[in-house]
Amino acid sequence: MAELSRRRLLGAGALVAGSAGAAAVVGPRLVSGAAAVGDPAVEPFYGPHQGGIATVPQGYATLMAFDLRPDHRTAASLRSIMKLWTADAARLTQGLPAIADTEPELATSPARLTVTVGYGPTLFDALRMTGARPATLRELPAFSVDRLEPRWGGAHLLVQLCADSPLPISHAARVLTKNVRSMATVRWIQRGFREPMRPEEPGGSMRNLMGQVDGTVNLAESQFDRFVWDGGEDQPWFAGGTIMVVRRIRAELDTWDQLGRDTKELVVGRTLDSGAPLTGQRESDEPDFDAHVGGIPVIPPNSHIARARHHVDSEQFLRRPYNYDDPPPAGQISDSGLLFLAFQRDPATQFVPVQQRISDGDALNEWVTPVGSATFAMLPGVRDGEYLGQPFLDAV
Amino acid sequence: MAELSRRRLLGAGALVAGSAGAAAVVGPRLVSGAAAVGDPAVEPFYGPHQGGIATVPQGYATLMAFDLRPDHRTAASLRSIMKLWTADAARLTQGLPAIADTEPELATSPARLTVTVGYGPTLFDALRMTGARPATLRELPAFSVDRLEPRWGGAHLLVQLCADSPLPISHAARVLTKNVRSMATVRWIQRGFREPMRPEEPGGSMRNLMGQVDGTVNLAESQFDRFVWDGGEDQPWFAGGTIMVVRRIRAELDTWDQLGRDTKELVVGRTLDSGAPLTGQRESDEPDFDAHVGGIPVIPPNSHIARARHHVDSEQFLRRPYNYDDPPPAGQISDSGLLFLAFQRDPATQFVPVQQRISDGDALNEWVTPVGSATFAMLPGVRDGEYLGQPFLDAV
Repeated sequence: MAELSRRRLLGAGALVAGSAGAAAVVGPRLVSGAAAVGDPAVEPFYGPHQGGIATVPQGYATLMAFDLRPDHRTAASLRSIMKLWTADAARLTQGLPAIADTEPELATSPARLTVTVGYGPTLFDALRMTGARPATLRELPAFSVDRLEPRWGGAHLLVQLCADSPLPISHAARVLTKNVRSMATVRWIQRGFREPMRPEEPGGSMRNLMGQVDGTVNLAESQFDRFVWDGGEDQPWFAGGTIMVVRRIRAELDTWDQLGRDTKELVVGRTLDSGAPLTGQRESDEPDFDAHVGGIPVIPPNSHIARARHHVDSEQFLRRPYNYDDPPPAGQISDSGLLFLAFQRDPATQFVPVQQRISDGDALNEWVTPVGSATFAMLPGVRDGEYLGQPFLDAV
Repeated sequence: MAELSRRRLLGAGALVAGSAGAAAVVGPRLVSGAAAVGDPAVEPFYGPHQGGIATVPQGYATLMAFDLRPDHRTAASLRSIMKLWTADAARLTQGLPAIADTEPELATSPARLTVTVGYGPTLFDALRMTGARPATLRELPAFSVDRLEPRWGGAHLLVQLCADSPLPISHAARVLTKNVRSMATVRWIQRGFREPMRPEEPGGSMRNLMGQVDGTVNLAESQFDRFVWDGGEDQPWFAGGTIMVVRRIRAELDTWDQLGRDTKELVVGRTLDSGAPLTGQRESDEPDFDAHVGGIPVIPPNSHIARARHHVDSEQFLRRPYNYDDPPPAGQISDSGLLFLAFQRDPATQFVPVQQRISDGDALNEWVTPVGSATFAMLPGVRDGEYLGQPFLDAV
């Protein structure tokens, strides 16, 4: 087809002088973006962990879930995909075109692009390698608040793409998908964006589309080894990986907007303007759940912060949320909410107890609805010369 | 419902001290974005023309098309909508919450937000005010390349929202839609993004998702009075307005990516890396359509730049394109292309001859497909104390 088109174009069938432009391979250059001012615009690819987890959250995220085609549910096909994605990610994140990149110029401004690859629980079943699945990788239990739509469910593979501009994400999504299309199909794509509360703290909290300050309570980098990175105790190949929880949480803005401002603040347990707990002045102030006025708690025990907070030390995990705002279905005016992305060693002891407490009695439940839920084992990082998932595929 | 929830939340039914936070009205503050570095983050709202047309293109655009509900196809309802949108836009563009804004904090970083309102040809029919329609506002003729999907067609009303961040766009979209939902329904929403080729020239060309440099040939500000702004000759109320053409042009990336690089460059007539014409060295070089090598034109006469360029002076118009990249339908891997947005006094003499020439024989046609098409009369600007469309509604 390309040659046919070429002949049609040239008409006379002759090559035209001066038209053979070689792909210019341009090195990374700095771009300025809201979250990247003063930061390098390139995130490292190689290392003990994949990027896009401990990385200061970029402004945009695209999650792509894939299923292996029925005739490619084999270790050999998975190995091919992992080699392709590793080669693509190693180059694209550094501002270099992918091998045989058909739009190489779209690669030159990565804007802190990260590519993060994970395996869903069903992959291990599909490959008949159930014994190699990390014990911490399980579907989440059903929560009574869930109204899950199957279209946002689990999948064999996940790719998380994050950057400070949508352009390198679009390009990377196309490259990674195109290169594996004969072996895998796209199950879903979810997109989000975030803007830090304070531009000078790009890794800090953000404001969600309900107007709340979101992500105030989060891990410090010193806590990652304890709470985020798998130690390989169960599956040695998984050392340095982490379990990702993806929850698509729809905001019921039509009813939320009917609430008065003070009611909203009681629901959340924080003020809307600064994000300070109702017992404090600043966002960073520790909430005082014991404070009472006239015998009534200042922060209601069923407020969101009272339920979502870790009650025991072990319930902590990394939050890396994004807003979503998709075109609404016919007859409605919004389809907005939160891509709640959480990373931890073991959801069963970290995320699940918190979510159970939320499900059992968070006042906010009336205005938010989980419509999607999935878990993925995000692979350990790689060294130059290795491919993503190699320790797993070498072991099977 | 709000009161019921409030009671449920409070349990004891008492008001809690310290929880009544007043909405903080915060003035505009500077945000840094790719296209806004060094620029003020607030665009003026009042003036002879609406913002979002001559405005240096922001990084993100959302177009919302509305139809009046059957029982609101009256001048009175249109006037209500115009007053609401004017009040909302005048505040939101300046970083101030809308009146009774339920998420006022989302308004404080407008990131150069502009709100631009237009009327579709069918509005004048629906209102039985056909005599007040500008003669230049017509549906476009059918082009043989068109494969138009009805879901992306014309509508009674258009709102274009542009900003350097998606957050103020999401907020403005919600406010503007919510306030008129009893009178109008959303027909479609289209979203796009762009990144300037050179960060130091935010108003210059961009790179589209086919890898081409897009928007090189464009109007200088000194040409706007001649080519963009209506002079009110036909309809005095329309003086200072302009006609917008919205074309949704799908990129056929799967086949485009099969082409060799030199073929792509012959199709476009420009090199892919710098965007220079095949007869030049720099993007800004004038193409030399008379240059031949061995009797063959260096820039093929059916290349895109040869067809899309104005052949007579009067065919010029303002291009303000955005990329789109939506989740693909099942079984496909991309749904990407261009939101081609053009502004001119009269499409019949400016856009249409160019598009007819493209339709008749542009080599690029094989890899791009127009799937949506609509035209709108974008209203003149307003002064403080007026509302958008007031000269029209005062005249009828």
